[in-house]
Amino acid sequence: MGRWEPDSRGRLEEAALALYGERGFESTTVAGIAERAGLTERTFFRHFADKREVLFGGAGTLQELLVGGVASAPKSAAPMDAVLAALETAGALLQERRDYAQKRQAVIAANTELQEREVIKLASLAGALAHALRRRGVKDPAATLTAEAGIAVFKVAFARWVEASNRRDLPRLVRESLGELQAATAPRHPA
Amino acid sequence: MGRWEPDSRGRLEEAALALYGERGFESTTVAGIAERAGLTERTFFRHFADKREVLFGGAGTLQELLVGGVASAPKSAAPMDAVLAALETAGALLQERRDYAQKRQAVIAANTELQEREVIKLASLAGALAHALRRRGVKDPAATLTAEAGIAVFKVAFARWVEASNRRDLPRLVRESLGELQAATAPRHPA
Repeated sequence: MGRWEPDSRGRLEEAALALYGERGFESTTVAGIAERAGLTERTFFRHFADKREVLFGGAGTLQELLVGGVASAPKSAAPMDAVLAALETAGALLQERRDYAQKRQAVIAANTELQEREVIKLASLAGALAHALRRRGVKDPAATLTAEAGIAVFKVAFARWVEASNRRDLPRLVRESLGELQAATAPRHPA
Repeated sequence: MGRWEPDSRGRLEEAALALYGERGFESTTVAGIAERAGLTERTFFRHFADKREVLFGGAGTLQELLVGGVASAPKSAAPMDAVLAALETAGALLQERRDYAQKRQAVIAANTELQEREVIKLASLAGALAHALRRRGVKDPAATLTAEAGIAVFKVAFARWVEASNRRDLPRLVRESLGELQAATAPRHPA
């Protein structure tokens, strides 16, 4: 095993997800992950604070993508369109990691504490999106409501995307889910 | 102090909220709450599992109200209208407890762990609402999206309702916030 491992992070992620799937998240140790990856525990801790961070370490990148996407939308874009553009951009990047996302989703679905962590992560993303909208001059409550709607759409699109039978890509599911949110919440008797 | 205390639960709640406000949630003990209420710790534990449950013990009632409201909406009601009716009913009952709600909100806003617990509570409510909609025959993703939109509306309405300067009642703020969600998410170029 070489001292310098260019893709040690990726190998640790892969080993961790395999073990979480086989043994369960609770029963997996950092030592076991390092061993499966053919690396040391010390290397693990250079990349992740703990075994939970393997699953949530990408949240910061996703948040930067979404906030950057909202900030860089054309000035003329309506708030919801700025959020949609950001979600589609993030979705296009995630698209390449569907296999990883499926495994991660299965691990989270099997553990209540991880599900709660995921709920908190999504709420933080909604807060960051609302903040990015306010920086574009969107007032509250529109900023908060648009951000919450965007994250609800993303969550639903993501759940459909990782389904085994799904063949559609994530950006398309994001657009479709927004259409469904609009249909579901539309006033029955428009003025 | 009598052995039989008809409103010991209410007194414990009041004492707990006062202490959480004065000393902070972390620094408050069950012994301190019982003392302030003029009751014993044993009485406290007859009503609450721990000091956090004083703040979250009402979640079950709120969930029952929302689920019951969705179930009892007219068969002809659109999903979003069934959710709106349920939120308005719950809002009308909460309206009587605005003073309590304001104090509770201030305590939660000051503590990250409590904020996370509140986020998880709202996500559970959204899950329960989606389930109630499915029982009415609403399919997914419409059921999930309608429920998530409803909880986003409720969260925003609640935050406005507890503001010191607010004079509007909660059911009205729920209706207004739904109107704002609809405006914020409406397609720009309707077909």
